[in-house]
Amino acid sequence: MGDGAVRLGGIVGDRNLLVGAAIAEDYGHDEALSVEPRKPAYVAKPATAEEVAELLKTASELGIPVTARGSGTGVSGGCRPADGGLVISFERMNAVLEVDTVNHVAVVQPGVTLSELDKATSPAGLGYTVYPGELSASVGGNVGTNAGGMRAIKYGVTRHNVLGLQAVLPTGEIIRTGGKVPKISSGYDLTQLVIGSEGSLALATEVTVKLHPKLPHGASVLAPFGDLDQVMTAVPKIVAAGLDPNILEYLDNMTMAAIAYSEKLELGVPEEIRERTQAYLVVSLENRHEDRLHEDIETLAELAGELGAIDVYVLEGPAARKLVEAREKAFWAAKSVGADDVIDVVVPRSAMPEFLTKSREMALSTGGGALGCGHAGDGNVHLAIFCKDPVTRKKLLTDIFALAMGLGGAISGEHGLGQSKNGYFRELEDPAKLALMRRLKQAFDPAGILNPSILFG
Amino acid sequence: MGDGAVRLGGIVGDRNLLVGAAIAEDYGHDEALSVEPRKPAYVAKPATAEEVAELLKTASELGIPVTARGSGTGVSGGCRPADGGLVISFERMNAVLEVDTVNHVAVVQPGVTLSELDKATSPAGLGYTVYPGELSASVGGNVGTNAGGMRAIKYGVTRHNVLGLQAVLPTGEIIRTGGKVPKISSGYDLTQLVIGSEGSLALATEVTVKLHPKLPHGASVLAPFGDLDQVMTAVPKIVAAGLDPNILEYLDNMTMAAIAYSEKLELGVPEEIRERTQAYLVVSLENRHEDRLHEDIETLAELAGELGAIDVYVLEGPAARKLVEAREKAFWAAKSVGADDVIDVVVPRSAMPEFLTKSREMALSTGGGALGCGHAGDGNVHLAIFCKDPVTRKKLLTDIFALAMGLGGAISGEHGLGQSKNGYFRELEDPAKLALMRRLKQAFDPAGILNPSILFG
Ligand SMILES: Cc1cc2nc3c(=O)[nH]c(=O)nc-3n(C[C@H](O)[C@H](O)[C@H](O)COP(=O)(O)OP(=O)(O)OC[C@H]3O[C@@H](n4cnc5c(N)ncnc54)[C@H](O)[C@@H]3O)c2cc1C
Ligand SMILES: Cc1cc2nc3c(=O)[nH]c(=O)nc-3n(C[C@H](O)[C@H](O)[C@H](O)COP(=O)(O)OP(=O)(O)OC[C@H]3O[C@@H](n4cnc5c(N)ncnc54)[C@H](O)[C@@H]3O)c2cc1C
Repeated sequence: MGDGAVRLGGIVGDRNLLVGAAIAEDYGHDEALSVEPRKPAYVAKPATAEEVAELLKTASELGIPVTARGSGTGVSGGCRPADGGLVISFERMNAVLEVDTVNHVAVVQPGVTLSELDKATSPAGLGYTVYPGELSASVGGNVGTNAGGMRAIKYGVTRHNVLGLQAVLPTGEIIRTGGKVPKISSGYDLTQLVIGSEGSLALATEVTVKLHPKLPHGASVLAPFGDLDQVMTAVPKIVAAGLDPNILEYLDNMTMAAIAYSEKLELGVPEEIRERTQAYLVVSLENRHEDRLHEDIETLAELAGELGAIDVYVLEGPAARKLVEAREKAFWAAKSVGADDVIDVVVPRSAMPEFLTKSREMALSTGGGALGCGHAGDGNVHLAIFCKDPVTRKKLLTDIFALAMGLGGAISGEHGLGQSKNGYFRELEDPAKLALMRRLKQAFDPAGILNPSILFG
Repeated sequence: MGDGAVRLGGIVGDRNLLVGAAIAEDYGHDEALSVEPRKPAYVAKPATAEEVAELLKTASELGIPVTARGSGTGVSGGCRPADGGLVISFERMNAVLEVDTVNHVAVVQPGVTLSELDKATSPAGLGYTVYPGELSASVGGNVGTNAGGMRAIKYGVTRHNVLGLQAVLPTGEIIRTGGKVPKISSGYDLTQLVIGSEGSLALATEVTVKLHPKLPHGASVLAPFGDLDQVMTAVPKIVAAGLDPNILEYLDNMTMAAIAYSEKLELGVPEEIRERTQAYLVVSLENRHEDRLHEDIETLAELAGELGAIDVYVLEGPAARKLVEAREKAFWAAKSVGADDVIDVVVPRSAMPEFLTKSREMALSTGGGALGCGHAGDGNVHLAIFCKDPVTRKKLLTDIFALAMGLGGAISGEHGLGQSKNGYFRELEDPAKLALMRRLKQAFDPAGILNPSILFG
């Protein structure tokens, strides 16, 4: 056993340090389709912030690159370890420390999964509203990627739902930022800076999240459209109607077919209509009052018709839930039909028609394709990219990302850059901003040990 | 004319550079009660981001400290200039560049006031929902302080309503951050870092703000309580009821009396009840549907009764508006009755009773007093401090701020630290966080020219 292993094992206990063959294959990757797994030299499973601090101090001293890992459900390779690196896995720091029903917050350790957290808050009628499609994701991972998900249109993304952190700086100091308060104007907002930094600035060891009352009544409208452009034009109008949807998704017909097939989804859309459909909108509403919900669903259904839907289906109860759950599995459907990458560009809602038309043309012109769905209300387009040749694909993705940025958007709306999109970011982003980000990284992490291949790899 | 004046005048044109006696007294202060005015050496009024960039480059070269000024309505001395310093006043950069009704955003120059912006967006039925009590405040000033206001309980503070910036770095580079999209996970969030940094990291030269539909129906409930503690205990319960109030304020009886007197407010509360009242709650609801509003107001009124209100008054139309407007003037009322300082501590909602009881005791024990009101739904307590002796006051404020921080809160919820509370921050905040903030400042502003007395002064 090398010096590194002895020292790291001394911190977390030898049982909680894996080296060599003891390291399971899973620690080498997340769910990104385009990032090759890479085995770390060490996996440490700390139990406390103090242990995390000791690990980081030791790693700084020994020059060992450190990658935080939550549940490894990321889709950008954000937790893929560095060569010879240390993975800090938060799997043992998975307690819900407090569900505070007066301030409507929960205080959790970072390794808590979204489904565990939901189990803890549900009895109080409260919930954390960040729902990426994968509920085995951890709250720490949400902080790392600034995760979004379907409910972001109503409740915002992780950034809007995390009020405070306990975080360990790479220099080994343990700090607390924010708290059980919705706003602070006292110095620079370190909470916001750490959120979305993909484990490259500091590691969250405790997270204070907002909770929202769970509304008892919900229903969804499923609206097939004959034309993708029409769907995209409908989206801002539905947002503007003020019905405050908690879900507003689009799925193109191929994606819907794929998830309907793999999830055995029976939507009740007759074949004759399915054949004329190019894309679907799924819009969900929720309310404390059943009568208000029904009134609003009716307004929504009418509006969808006016905006050109071929037909409108109102789904309630299990049928509505099944559709939403199936939509959450779109990633697996894309993977199973052989997608070469999945991206999640964000553009202004108004630019979605242009973005979709052009990006699909770009993909088709390579002989491949781009299919998708997305959090349409947020302008967040999830495209499955089919393009086998890596060189062509790189060129295609560069063009698609440049298109999105040119339309006023960004490379990733919620998945993060990780190790699959960091290169494009460096190529396409303003050098002055990159230089500033490098200086910020330096301010947090002078030894450059935290997830060094992120952003600046 | 010195070298500085020649060079700065060359950038903005001599007409737009003030020096010496031409500098009006107003440029030396904001509305902070406890910060002495200080005349700057120069006031420049740029018209473009490029001019701002040239000003900052030149100031860096000449070592001239620079303070941004919006409307000077801040209450923490954030725009009070440095000795021999340059004030960059954004008064000429006051155009509403775009009201985008598809994406529900406006793009504005920083000098636009909130009332001008409202005038521009109202015809489209949309509004920017950050309403600090003073509508002559500028959007750039909101960015500087991370301003809040009464609607923050529903719509969040500036941080939640600014989607993107054009900003000039002190090194003279012009960058763009964010955009017309509600979420981004692509690199560090520079927008969020600049917001609330009180002009010490970068200057905003263009701001993209979220707009929300204006809801047509609104009403308020005014509920007098016999006991301040009871009010504070009622607040979390009203929040939890899920009625989604857009305003949730408390006012103690002295503050209510002062604003009622100075604003000639006729609330219809009989004297017999006023005499038994220790504090008032003001809760406003708004809705797209008049019938829903009335139903909810009734629920709210009942709830207030159950929670111990002596009586409940429902105000609609002009009466409701007048009450809210008068509340916005509480600051002037405090000033007119001789308050020595006004602070805006934030604590978890659950800690408000303890905070208020103890802080008032602390103030009374100095022979002075603490009166107030606040954005109770946010845990944001605005206290007018009466304590003439500066040394005693300093000790009192230190104790009050330490109390708030000990309860899990912060020195300022929305006003910022400016030059009135920065010293307390340095004394009470974790040295590891201060050191990190210093390094962040250094990463943005290596020459240390931007509002240098903020935070680290
Ligand atoms: C089927 C499927 C659907 C999905 N749908 C969505 C979706 O709709 N929206 C969405 O946003 N995402 C979605 N995702 C992606 C993923 O679930 C999210 O990115 C999630 O936030 C990752 O959490 P994790 O615990 O798995 O993080 P990991 O993959 O383990 O790590 C993610 C990043 O966070 C960092 N990190 C982990 N823990 C910490 C910590 N304690 N402190 C600091 N940094 C840390 C890691 O280093 C890494 O950079 C989906 C994934 C799948 C497989
Ligand atoms: C009666 C009254 C009631 C108030 N009520 C509230 C309230 O309820 N909530 C609340 O939050 N505030 C309130 N305020 C305070 C004030 O209105 C806000 O702080 C507002 O944001 C200040 O805007 P301003 O344009 O006047 O900024 P200024 O006072 O000019 O500047 C404020 C800070 O922002 C910086 N700054 C200015 N422009 C820029 C720019 N372009 N880029 C970067 N930094 C910049 C300045 O350097 C300074 O540090 C109130 C003030 C008054 C007088």
